[in-house]
Amino acid sequence: MADMPQRIPRDVRMEGFVERASVGEAIEWTDRIAHTCETESIALGSALGRILPEPFVAPVASPPYGTAVQDGYALRSCETVGASSYNPLPFCLQDAQFALRPFSAALVSCGTPLPMGADAVVPFDLVQTEANTTNLIGSVAQGDGVAVQGQEAQAGTVLIEASRMLRASDLGLIASFGIKRIPVLRRPKVRIMLAGSKQTQEGHLPDANGPLLRALVMRDGGTIEICKYGIADRAAMAEWMVRPGADLVLVCGRTGVGPDDEAPLALAAVGTLALHGIAVRPGGSTGMGSIGPVPVLLLPGSPLDCLCAYDLFAGRLIRKLGGRAPTMPYGLCQAKIKRKIVSSVGTVELCRVLLIAGDALPLGRSDSGGLASVAHADGFLLIPAALEGYAPGTTVDVYTYDQTQKLEGVWK
Amino acid sequence: MADMPQRIPRDVRMEGFVERASVGEAIEWTDRIAHTCETESIALGSALGRILPEPFVAPVASPPYGTAVQDGYALRSCETVGASSYNPLPFCLQDAQFALRPFSAALVSCGTPLPMGADAVVPFDLVQTEANTTNLIGSVAQGDGVAVQGQEAQAGTVLIEASRMLRASDLGLIASFGIKRIPVLRRPKVRIMLAGSKQTQEGHLPDANGPLLRALVMRDGGTIEICKYGIADRAAMAEWMVRPGADLVLVCGRTGVGPDDEAPLALAAVGTLALHGIAVRPGGSTGMGSIGPVPVLLLPGSPLDCLCAYDLFAGRLIRKLGGRAPTMPYGLCQAKIKRKIVSSVGTVELCRVLLIAGDALPLGRSDSGGLASVAHADGFLLIPAALEGYAPGTTVDVYTYDQTQKLEGVWK
Repeated sequence: MADMPQRIPRDVRMEGFVERASVGEAIEWTDRIAHTCETESIALGSALGRILPEPFVAPVASPPYGTAVQDGYALRSCETVGASSYNPLPFCLQDAQFALRPFSAALVSCGTPLPMGADAVVPFDLVQTEANTTNLIGSVAQGDGVAVQGQEAQAGTVLIEASRMLRASDLGLIASFGIKRIPVLRRPKVRIMLAGSKQTQEGHLPDANGPLLRALVMRDGGTIEICKYGIADRAAMAEWMVRPGADLVLVCGRTGVGPDDEAPLALAAVGTLALHGIAVRPGGSTGMGSIGPVPVLLLPGSPLDCLCAYDLFAGRLIRKLGGRAPTMPYGLCQAKIKRKIVSSVGTVELCRVLLIAGDALPLGRSDSGGLASVAHADGFLLIPAALEGYAPGTTVDVYTYDQTQKLEGVWK
Repeated sequence: MADMPQRIPRDVRMEGFVERASVGEAIEWTDRIAHTCETESIALGSALGRILPEPFVAPVASPPYGTAVQDGYALRSCETVGASSYNPLPFCLQDAQFALRPFSAALVSCGTPLPMGADAVVPFDLVQTEANTTNLIGSVAQGDGVAVQGQEAQAGTVLIEASRMLRASDLGLIASFGIKRIPVLRRPKVRIMLAGSKQTQEGHLPDANGPLLRALVMRDGGTIEICKYGIADRAAMAEWMVRPGADLVLVCGRTGVGPDDEAPLALAAVGTLALHGIAVRPGGSTGMGSIGPVPVLLLPGSPLDCLCAYDLFAGRLIRKLGGRAPTMPYGLCQAKIKRKIVSSVGTVELCRVLLIAGDALPLGRSDSGGLASVAHADGFLLIPAALEGYAPGTTVDVYTYDQTQKLEGVWK
């Protein structure tokens, strides 16, 4: 970790943060430390949403031979010239598994091989059948109703690019080659240590952070190595931080400036505390560092701060560890600020908004309202550190919690 | 089902479809038959992505009492007037669990209760401490650093609306009230019957539809009741269609106009075949009907047709059964048609496209290319039945397979 910023964080307890890292510095730190997990082989049926480590290449041509793509009669197109309802052309019926004889046709179904020599399939509505003779009442062009060998893909063609989050249609495509198992990137194993926010430790309030972080890690493709409650003192924190087995350690709580906020000291004792205190609101007491190659993120114990710090830093790290796109898994739209927003220069503020007919209506202060303000909001915007807010009417990018499309009705 | 269209579908085998239902009619049929599954109670930790059947209402005020929202000293704001570094005001320190005495301050942490009488919290950087005395070097306003009782939510406030797909932050919010189990809509149970597309039945090509449909059902929030292969004849199909236990039956294959395409006949024998043959490409041989209250969808055996029919009709039905938004779970953007697209009047065509710098580049014919054309595409557009295509330069809505946001960097 020689290239990490070597500013040694000071003990901020009972003092407050004197200087804070910028959000950009913190994100650059997470991006530098994130290595992608290794590859594992899994059953195709479990691969929805997993990440492909390398391109998927067609192992053979698809289709592997000339194939009917509609139900009907396979024949030679050149033999159909001139056929019409005024001039029905007779064809002999034969079995599709034999090479096509002259002026013969074979019954085929969509997806079955063409008999050798056939280059088109006529649909049933161009055919009148009597006994063993088929009368064609329309002509077809070469290639009508058929897929030639390799028409969908030649052997060796890249069909799915590396880093793709596998879609249902990808699994169908891979299965169509008879493949049962595929390589995917392993999911990052995330250790969650709930260091006892004081609310929960003293029994004042039920814990929100455990369910919150478990669900966030699942959402971002990680697995929970362990979710351990009540690790409040420096020695216990340090002991749990250094245990092997996790790709990422998330410590929640005990990151602030109170006398018992010992998570940063625990990390500094057994690893490297790279940053503590970030110019962001909510989430300003976030810290980050590492123990050997394993990143350790210190998230604030207040649930709103925890969520924001997770979304900006921890989620990004988990997505990168798992090979996903690092950007936040939210929708994105543009909206006009409805009401003036005031923000502190030097601090990125995450402001929840309602979206009403293209307007973004800010919901109170960026650092108040708790998770209720998140539940109530349609999304949020990030106010850059350089700005002191937004004037009404400014067009901004809004991240939306809901990605569902509202549009439909093209068939009407 | 008295209000269902009672056009009795004819046997189209060896004849072809003479008339087809419109996509709009088919969607209206699925919307009429879709009833939402009942409610079940599950552990909060399993509820990510599940659907809330009724609003979630704050059972008590949040916070339940006045609470510090930063680390520091709780005190009475009116007693801080005039404090500055030139005029430090002394406060006595006391424990936070007792009512605040005059000109006293109590050490508090973010999230802990305020002592009775306190209305503000001063951060450590406004304080100089000596022995048992705290000298305040700045004033604070009433409410600074605190959340009053009910500030985030009053008891009885709707915090999460009904029909919400639960987010990680929702789970944190619900947990913050000490709630461990919640009511959600049951996932629809989907039976998949692979009626033997002829490719797979005769061993010509490996099956793509099983992995495809399983993954699609999972994506849309359903569970697989059973995925049964090789049910090819009419009696076996009918027998498997009528078995109880599924909220929806998907039959894949045997829907076309070949002599052994008996899925529609099997459904008509034991239930109602409401529609067979839809004016859409790919997916034109789709059928739909019901057995009692259970919808039965007949999807084409060609994987591309199967996917398109699933996306337009079956996925919508599964999402509605599960209480999700019925619209397709794809992104949406606008793009300019790069190259002329020809389409048949009277048929909705689903045209895969590449998106290149705001242009939509069509990828061949709507009904060719197989699942490889889906893997290769960035998304698709639906050409309405009324149009014969699009001229270059037309702006159209494009559904995108990938919902990931590309934008970032507001902090830079």
